[in-house]
Amino acid sequence: MSYARPTIARIAGYTPGEQPKGRRLIKLNTNENPYPPSPMVADALQHFPAERLKLYPVPGADSVREAAAELFGIDSRQILCGNGSDDLLTIALRTFVDQGGGFAYTEPSYSLYPVLADIQGARKIPVALDENFMLPENAAELAAGAALFIMARPNAPTGNSFPKARVAKLCREFAGVVWVDEAYADFANDNCLDLLGQFPNVVVSRTLSKSYSLAGLRLGLACAAPELIAEMDKVRDSYNIDMLTQALATAAIKDSAAMRENVRRIRASREKLCGEMLAMGCDVLPSEANFIFAKPPRPAAEVFQALRERGFLVRYFNLPRISDYIRITIGSEEDMAAFCAVCRELFTAGK
Amino acid sequence: MSYARPTIARIAGYTPGEQPKGRRLIKLNTNENPYPPSPMVADALQHFPAERLKLYPVPGADSVREAAAELFGIDSRQILCGNGSDDLLTIALRTFVDQGGGFAYTEPSYSLYPVLADIQGARKIPVALDENFMLPENAAELAAGAALFIMARPNAPTGNSFPKARVAKLCREFAGVVWVDEAYADFANDNCLDLLGQFPNVVVSRTLSKSYSLAGLRLGLACAAPELIAEMDKVRDSYNIDMLTQALATAAIKDSAAMRENVRRIRASREKLCGEMLAMGCDVLPSEANFIFAKPPRPAAEVFQALRERGFLVRYFNLPRISDYIRITIGSEEDMAAFCAVCRELFTAGK
Repeated sequence: MSYARPTIARIAGYTPGEQPKGRRLIKLNTNENPYPPSPMVADALQHFPAERLKLYPVPGADSVREAAAELFGIDSRQILCGNGSDDLLTIALRTFVDQGGGFAYTEPSYSLYPVLADIQGARKIPVALDENFMLPENAAELAAGAALFIMARPNAPTGNSFPKARVAKLCREFAGVVWVDEAYADFANDNCLDLLGQFPNVVVSRTLSKSYSLAGLRLGLACAAPELIAEMDKVRDSYNIDMLTQALATAAIKDSAAMRENVRRIRASREKLCGEMLAMGCDVLPSEANFIFAKPPRPAAEVFQALRERGFLVRYFNLPRISDYIRITIGSEEDMAAFCAVCRELFTAGK
Repeated sequence: MSYARPTIARIAGYTPGEQPKGRRLIKLNTNENPYPPSPMVADALQHFPAERLKLYPVPGADSVREAAAELFGIDSRQILCGNGSDDLLTIALRTFVDQGGGFAYTEPSYSLYPVLADIQGARKIPVALDENFMLPENAAELAAGAALFIMARPNAPTGNSFPKARVAKLCREFAGVVWVDEAYADFANDNCLDLLGQFPNVVVSRTLSKSYSLAGLRLGLACAAPELIAEMDKVRDSYNIDMLTQALATAAIKDSAAMRENVRRIRASREKLCGEMLAMGCDVLPSEANFIFAKPPRPAAEVFQALRERGFLVRYFNLPRISDYIRITIGSEEDMAAFCAVCRELFTAGK
């Protein structure tokens, strides 16, 4: 007998990517940034007086929202801050989807989406990506009856982006809220922020975890019409963003030039890695993220294990449609060179 | 027309205590600690390398749980960390109460409880405290049908504690989970941690916001049987505690001696303030918290306003049973002396 709700008792919960302890592994498994955050972040940390922590933080994280509003060219009332974008996704389910209500999400994608559905007790409506892992043309039809539709663009773990016209079509045709999870958008060729002015039902979310090198800080941003933000704000914990995070996130966003320089290096490494993996006989999906999704010439599970034994941790998903692939986060130039050397050895062994 | 669930669209959300900007007010309204956190916290902050923030934090905040487990004399598997105890209360509702399910909470108490019920879409079962603001003897009977019962002990905003035997009786007689919100327990004469060994259905929560002078950091702790913790852990966001909070909270908990010294001073100031307010003709409830709840000899709303004009911000609740009272957070010895001088002037004016 469990005290928990049946919807909780029967699930396993979400399993985050491994954070290895002890043995030194080169981490290419959780899409962290290999480069440090802006020096302005270190500076804000250095100058933060610990005594201030005795007071509550500003409930709405105003300074973060104002910095982001300026960067995105929107109003700060169009922004909600989350304790990481996972917090925002949780808020999304709790704001828009009743227990038993329909929740649509693309598949394969971020494996947290169906877990959040289970926690809320929502009815899951997975929408399969097409044969090129693209958002299907008739996504609205496939998601009929759902109150919320979440997709990641660029998608994880496949790395590709979807044609923006298909996202706009979905916003137009779908009766509920369309949430575009843009965790990787800073690495992409375009983004969906301009849809905010066109549709009252679209939310675009960002995170400082990847492009801003601040996964350890936990700061996500949801952008939408003020009416949608106001509803989500009722669900948000009043003090969900602590004082240090507010100070450091504000500093990071104000120095987005430092982020863009890191992104430039990562994109260059990404293109180089893609080329080398193709040359080694891998299939590689076109990536607009800070990782690539590659089908190696040997079984992926075996490659995952062999890489681990040689000191490289990548991500392997034993799931339908993607069990032939490994996901490789773009690390530093040195780590990528070492990684390619090991792959070369692995993929040519026995030939 | 709203995109939000009806249960969200119709509520106003929670209103946190005011954090005044601009004009300098002495803040006695949100139960913050007037003294700084342990010097070990400043030290941990000083030595934290900003570059580490590029990685994800440890998902379970292990170091915090281990430090707290040692302090409380329990196992770390009996502890769950929250992004403030508000995060834990949210997790409680989401783990134990279905939409439409029963949720019991004492009244008057922390005004967030019914708001969390509304957000979850739970059926609210307020249990009125008795004429002395004590937990009623027949609380289990009054809460029949609820899946979760939350109380604050010591209670806010009244400041009094409940006989522990009544809490134990409720744990024994109530079919669901009994949550004892011990945000103020470090200021009290006893606490309910020993109930953990006696009942499988009890949760005791703590926060670093008050006694540890870390409201700005956001760290709450829920203690319970490992089976209850495991269910709540499924609902918790994997990375709900950021890296800096983990480092600083661990340092704070390891130096609980510094916390206890601050608590000693606050308790002494509390007793002194109680005596002075009584002497000025106030009714004062017996307090085991870091605030007092006082019925002044003039209308409370008027006193609240007059205090504000004189630079002191206290808390006034225009709610049934408590609209004759003001809640005064215990500040520094100097602020309390100045506050008493102003009260003396206010309460004797026109006499």
